[in-house]
Amino acid sequence: MAITLIINTGSTSKKYALYDQRKVVLEFRYERTASGYEVCTKNATGAQSSAGITQTDFSASLTQVVPAINEYLAEHTKVLDSICVRVVAPGTPFQQHQVIDAAYLAALRQAELTSPLHVPTTLQEIHAAKLAFPAATIVAASDSAFHDTMPERSREFSIDRSDAELYDVHRFGCHGLSVASIVRRVHPVTGLNPERVVVVHVGGGVSVTALHKNVSIDTSIGYASASGLPMGTRAGELDAGALLRLMRSKNLRPSEAEMYLYTKGGLAGLADDGDIRRLLDRRSKGDAVATAALDLFVYHIQKMIAAMTVPLGGLDLLVLTGTACSRSAELRTLILSGLSHLGVAIDSDRNETLVNADGLFNKKDAAVKVAAIRTDEMGEMVYVAEQFRKK
Amino acid sequence: MAITLIINTGSTSKKYALYDQRKVVLEFRYERTASGYEVCTKNATGAQSSAGITQTDFSASLTQVVPAINEYLAEHTKVLDSICVRVVAPGTPFQQHQVIDAAYLAALRQAELTSPLHVPTTLQEIHAAKLAFPAATIVAASDSAFHDTMPERSREFSIDRSDAELYDVHRFGCHGLSVASIVRRVHPVTGLNPERVVVVHVGGGVSVTALHKNVSIDTSIGYASASGLPMGTRAGELDAGALLRLMRSKNLRPSEAEMYLYTKGGLAGLADDGDIRRLLDRRSKGDAVATAALDLFVYHIQKMIAAMTVPLGGLDLLVLTGTACSRSAELRTLILSGLSHLGVAIDSDRNETLVNADGLFNKKDAAVKVAAIRTDEMGEMVYVAEQFRKK
Repeated sequence: MAITLIINTGSTSKKYALYDQRKVVLEFRYERTASGYEVCTKNATGAQSSAGITQTDFSASLTQVVPAINEYLAEHTKVLDSICVRVVAPGTPFQQHQVIDAAYLAALRQAELTSPLHVPTTLQEIHAAKLAFPAATIVAASDSAFHDTMPERSREFSIDRSDAELYDVHRFGCHGLSVASIVRRVHPVTGLNPERVVVVHVGGGVSVTALHKNVSIDTSIGYASASGLPMGTRAGELDAGALLRLMRSKNLRPSEAEMYLYTKGGLAGLADDGDIRRLLDRRSKGDAVATAALDLFVYHIQKMIAAMTVPLGGLDLLVLTGTACSRSAELRTLILSGLSHLGVAIDSDRNETLVNADGLFNKKDAAVKVAAIRTDEMGEMVYVAEQFRKK
Repeated sequence: MAITLIINTGSTSKKYALYDQRKVVLEFRYERTASGYEVCTKNATGAQSSAGITQTDFSASLTQVVPAINEYLAEHTKVLDSICVRVVAPGTPFQQHQVIDAAYLAALRQAELTSPLHVPTTLQEIHAAKLAFPAATIVAASDSAFHDTMPERSREFSIDRSDAELYDVHRFGCHGLSVASIVRRVHPVTGLNPERVVVVHVGGGVSVTALHKNVSIDTSIGYASASGLPMGTRAGELDAGALLRLMRSKNLRPSEAEMYLYTKGGLAGLADDGDIRRLLDRRSKGDAVATAALDLFVYHIQKMIAAMTVPLGGLDLLVLTGTACSRSAELRTLILSGLSHLGVAIDSDRNETLVNADGLFNKKDAAVKVAAIRTDEMGEMVYVAEQFRKK
């Protein structure tokens, strides 16, 4: 009976989905593309359409989807029970799922500086959602909550302990909703119940997480969502001393340095384009810059996968997820090619068939199982919202 | 016939050694200890003595050793041909061994900000050496030169390529002299000629390097010598975004943030003591803080070792070096305990016998050979100095 609106704003996209119980009945994806902005719409029958839009339309996206939502509610004589918004921000206040109240909003406003790519948009969406549906409960789905189980050695930096406490600087991790959705989907897709799993998420952000018995015990993203691994536009592995050098050389203030970390690095920094599809295309045409950028990008993912075998004491299943991994067999091949010494061997034919699909594609006798599984952050957020439904 | 003075200033010590040909004839180690300062002296016969000294004596250490050096030279009617100084600083000008001239000194002065722990002392020593031995050639032994062989994916950050060029921000690495000395010593100690080697150096600094056919192909330290792994007092793995958060919270300027990275992190940050011997002692007495700090410290080293199997495609030999690894079988056991899935298995009895000694200590049938080998940075610097000797 319950109706939930899911709002998932990423670094380059805004997605809305209306769920009737646990079933999607309306979906809207607003994306910034190389040439401008576009929106993809899908209704309950699965009919899709897409259209180019203006930047103003993109900014006011929630306002644009409200009429369709209200139409659905009226048609089915239902009300919107809750709205669930994904929150990506480092800090203890954001490491649990919770109903958004005034105190939470105040804390989120303070986090704008540390999460310049995510938090400002999230605040706009919460504001617009309140105006559009004043009666609905608005729930924050924390993208870090899933990593709350990490032991001290994974969770802490080696900095002064009192500073870590006082300023709340810990390794909170990200992509928790994605990894939680994978945990839910491993058995249905593979038929396995593996103890030692590594999940590689490659979308706009990139992370690698170690799961022991379905629980996060380590993850590559530390404090900033721009940390750990090179991403589309985020530098990831840049060391703190190197950033200080850049701050001095380019005369950057901390807020400018923050934006630099989020927007001037990763594949965009190396090859002037953060879009993996286009880089794979350039690579196939012999473009040396794109080839080198992808080589570096993939290399760091491989090293992180190998590192995660340490807390797990080995590896039973490797899962590749996130938009880029789900749609490109070529990217998956690149990532997995350097891992044969860990027992990874893939069935290339099977890999080719898995385009936006789920399944195992390791060689039959390989020591490590390998699966492509599509992430379902939005579906996971419905489960989160259910926890806060008025009984 | 050639006489060389080696000057090796670390973050907490200053070492001097006079070499007649390739043999040490005089040695002085100045160290900052928990209670103050001390100097250890060793002469050509191997006779040792140590004494407590004042901070003033520590600062003027070179002046103090000059009379003994002159006495040796007079007694043997020889002259000092060259002085070789270890230089730890990121930047292309410092990535090769070379004779120190005015241009080099100017560049080094500019590097004081990016290497606050090493460069100021190095400059003082060069100045004192020039005054004491005006006729000797002074050679800079680069601690990064050995890593000049790293491929692009290991050498570059994923930042804007033009910024990387313009501001010379690359992963230069450190501990190159130590690793070079290990390369020289692997065969004499082990009788092996392994293709795929990982060298773990744990002293005041900590690093892990991957060697393929004796050539560096990746290393954990990036731009700053305080990057990569947690160290005695250096934060190592702190992400750039987390540092920005601390800069804002504590109102730190870049130069203050730099000192923070070098002095407030690592084991000292976690357990108020950067000395591994004392922490192992506290751990053996059940101290929970020391235990947790060592657990985190060792965990990062283990993950980095596993990561380095990626560029190597596996592992033939793992070498543990640096003062802390050479003198503590317990530390070596801690580091190696989490790596059985990579084929590491140690002979505990053999390990216990290797205190400040060299040798293999893997189990006989283990897939990976494991050796403790003492580093010989000073000996390596003699080879560096020889390259610049007037013919």
